[in-house]
Amino acid sequence: PAKVAKSRRLKWEVKPSEMANNTLNPIRSIVDEMKLTPNPDKPMIALSIGDPTVFGNLPTDDSVLQAMKDAIDSHKYNGYAPSVGYVKSREAVANFYSCPEAPLEAEDVILTSGCSHAIDLAISVLCNPGDNILVPRPGFSLYKTLAVSMGIKVKFYDLLPEKEWEVDLQHMESLIDESTSCLIVTNPSNPCGSVFSKDHLQKILKVASRHRVPILADEIYSDMVLPGCSSPSMASLSSDVPIMSCGGLAKRWLVPGWRMGWVLIHDRNNVFGSAIRQGLVKLSQRILGACSLVQGALEGILNNTPQSFYSNTISLLKTNSEICFNELSSVPGLNPVRTSGAMYLMVGIDLDHFPGFENDVDFTERMVTEQSVFCLPTSAFEFPNFFRVVLTVPEQMMVEACVRIRQFCLCHYQHHSRHGNQLDQ
Amino acid sequence: PAKVAKSRRLKWEVKPSEMANNTLNPIRSIVDEMKLTPNPDKPMIALSIGDPTVFGNLPTDDSVLQAMKDAIDSHKYNGYAPSVGYVKSREAVANFYSCPEAPLEAEDVILTSGCSHAIDLAISVLCNPGDNILVPRPGFSLYKTLAVSMGIKVKFYDLLPEKEWEVDLQHMESLIDESTSCLIVTNPSNPCGSVFSKDHLQKILKVASRHRVPILADEIYSDMVLPGCSSPSMASLSSDVPIMSCGGLAKRWLVPGWRMGWVLIHDRNNVFGSAIRQGLVKLSQRILGACSLVQGALEGILNNTPQSFYSNTISLLKTNSEICFNELSSVPGLNPVRTSGAMYLMVGIDLDHFPGFENDVDFTERMVTEQSVFCLPTSAFEFPNFFRVVLTVPEQMMVEACVRIRQFCLCHYQHHSRHGNQLDQ
Ligand SMILES: Cc1ncc(COP(=O)(O)O)c(C=O)c1O
Ligand SMILES: Cc1ncc(COP(=O)(O)O)c(C=O)c1O
Repeated sequence: PAKVAKSRRLKWEVKPSEMANNTLNPIRSIVDEMKLTPNPDKPMIALSIGDPTVFGNLPTDDSVLQAMKDAIDSHKYNGYAPSVGYVKSREAVANFYSCPEAPLEAEDVILTSGCSHAIDLAISVLCNPGDNILVPRPGFSLYKTLAVSMGIKVKFYDLLPEKEWEVDLQHMESLIDESTSCLIVTNPSNPCGSVFSKDHLQKILKVASRHRVPILADEIYSDMVLPGCSSPSMASLSSDVPIMSCGGLAKRWLVPGWRMGWVLIHDRNNVFGSAIRQGLVKLSQRILGACSLVQGALEGILNNTPQSFYSNTISLLKTNSEICFNELSSVPGLNPVRTSGAMYLMVGIDLDHFPGFENDVDFTERMVTEQSVFCLPTSAFEFPNFFRVVLTVPEQMMVEACVRIRQFCLCHYQHHSRHGNQLDQ
Repeated sequence: PAKVAKSRRLKWEVKPSEMANNTLNPIRSIVDEMKLTPNPDKPMIALSIGDPTVFGNLPTDDSVLQAMKDAIDSHKYNGYAPSVGYVKSREAVANFYSCPEAPLEAEDVILTSGCSHAIDLAISVLCNPGDNILVPRPGFSLYKTLAVSMGIKVKFYDLLPEKEWEVDLQHMESLIDESTSCLIVTNPSNPCGSVFSKDHLQKILKVASRHRVPILADEIYSDMVLPGCSSPSMASLSSDVPIMSCGGLAKRWLVPGWRMGWVLIHDRNNVFGSAIRQGLVKLSQRILGACSLVQGALEGILNNTPQSFYSNTISLLKTNSEICFNELSSVPGLNPVRTSGAMYLMVGIDLDHFPGFENDVDFTERMVTEQSVFCLPTSAFEFPNFFRVVLTVPEQMMVEACVRIRQFCLCHYQHHSRHGNQLDQ
């Protein structure tokens, strides 16, 4: 009877795990708390969602859809793929991204269920609970969400808006300690829309090299850069820093729902070695990776998508980024930061001149109430007092959004700053 | 300089995490260690792989493929789906599995990247490191793989081959303690091919109810039962035990590579409540779930697959299970266990009469060397001295495999048991 008493619960008590409780999504927790009640007289314009497909103006290429249909018709891709992906599909990715400075073979590629899963695998294999990782601020929130849920600490290094969001290298370096197991670099950047120069990337690599910290390069927006701007991969610039580059089909091929991502393993001097590779393979066996049909289509997608498809997207991004930057530059109280890639533009809010609002959340919430324009407050990216504009909307919608944002600011802007500082005027 | 010395590593040292090291796949570690060199004079017959698509004799239904093409053509399923899945797709699953005793609505369904991911979410939300879960032995190895990697302990409860793999209920109950956070029940079973009676399921539920342990019902093989056998879902038999039922398209619809799974939340008296539901939602946001195209096709797949498709699979399983059971029943030294569902059959090896072999691994390895027939040794399922036969192969292959297994056994069987016990004869 003692034994029964010990084991038998007196009532039902089922609680979510620590891990579930610690899986925090700042975008959700901020947005869910906002009162988003659009002005009934104005149709809603959501510049908040990082999904380029929502407005229908950026369909994926027909060749991408055809590759999927061919995969279906082949009847070859219904069974289990190896947990790291079909060799042929991995080879296709390797060939697509290989370059002389950073050669890739099939065995260097692990296919995953979206870039999110690639990031999950990379962090999971490199970091133990108690370790810390360096993450950009402002930055994509998933890094922290995943790390915190696994008991890994997050240290934020600053990006500098006044330097087109370059890394504050000194600050970054000062954060590194003996428990730093990974440096995450997002380039091009969500939410900044910035693209690092080759020179700046080399400086980041120097820091990693000096302290011997491996890099997780989130390059999901690679090649999504405006004309005139180049974005070499981090791996192509390093001969000694081992790098895992995470990417996928989501953004460039405009099919984020398909959940096709990858880790590209750029080892250097066998630092990762077979141990890290094996670790990634083992982790990939937990829930397996991407849909086999998308894997079957991958070679066709990478090889047959016409250049015109990519440049069409870029051209829309360029147009909208110019509209947005130019229009908002002349709006009192706003400080847009010029963009060079990805699909975002950040706009600083000079809250001193908007005494009616406490912060970016308040500001963007009211912009919905009054103007039915929703931009994400950048508190969601650990960086307050900006809002992020998504640039993939139809051009006319971007124009209209800017008109409304201007109206909103003109309505609330106070010439005298709230601190009454004469120097402000 | 002290600070620099502290933080600066003197050489590169990147090691895989504890979690990667602790992600152990027993099937891989056993199979990779085996010397699998088929007899060059006999074509290989692999009865080892739980993938019903490998031999081409069990294609999925045309309506399933058509549903995928329709999803592609609709251009509606390329963007991000909600992390728990599209409402319409969740609704389709709810409608498909809802019954008066265990009603389901869309909000009770979470779509995942394969049933593996469903199991991962269910374990992750219910268990903390240090907790223990009850897992069947022999059983599907993923439960332990996932649990151990998360620091959750695994306690195995026995299934009894002499009782058609029913649970040893006393043994199961004796394992429960105050740290038991989940009871996993696999029905129909991989690797056993067994299906529990309603009566037996009710007894299992009684144990869970007495000790107030929630159930993870792995029902990926639900409805894959031989004629005359019924397999009610666990949830339909319980009014007080909260259950998460994990399933997916993999087996019944013969598309395991598509990675479409689900968790069905059967709460009882609000024991899971909104906390567990919210926990599942949060966990689903980590890497998101199933491919949006497959989600888009889901309603069509569930509603339009003809009954004849399902019964065709069952009919092959029945034929092969009879061939395999009847043929191997008369082979000296083998004890096949009759099967009633899923797609497997277990065969006991009377090693006393095979003194040439140490164990099931040794035995099955040599069967490859001599007869080019590969069956999985059940050490991979924490249960030695059996091998598992996959029943989804073409009928002629099953016949031929049985002939060769008989030859193999006749060749190695020793009438006198190795212990020389007279009673054996
Ligand atoms: C910087 C960055 N990395 C990764 C991802 C996730 O990509 P996926 O949808 O392929 O998981 C996103 C998505 O917005 C992103 O912005
Ligand atoms: C009992 C059991 N559960 C779950 C799974 C995993 O299913 P999925 O391929 O959908 O992840 C399998 C696969 O073999 C299985 O046998």
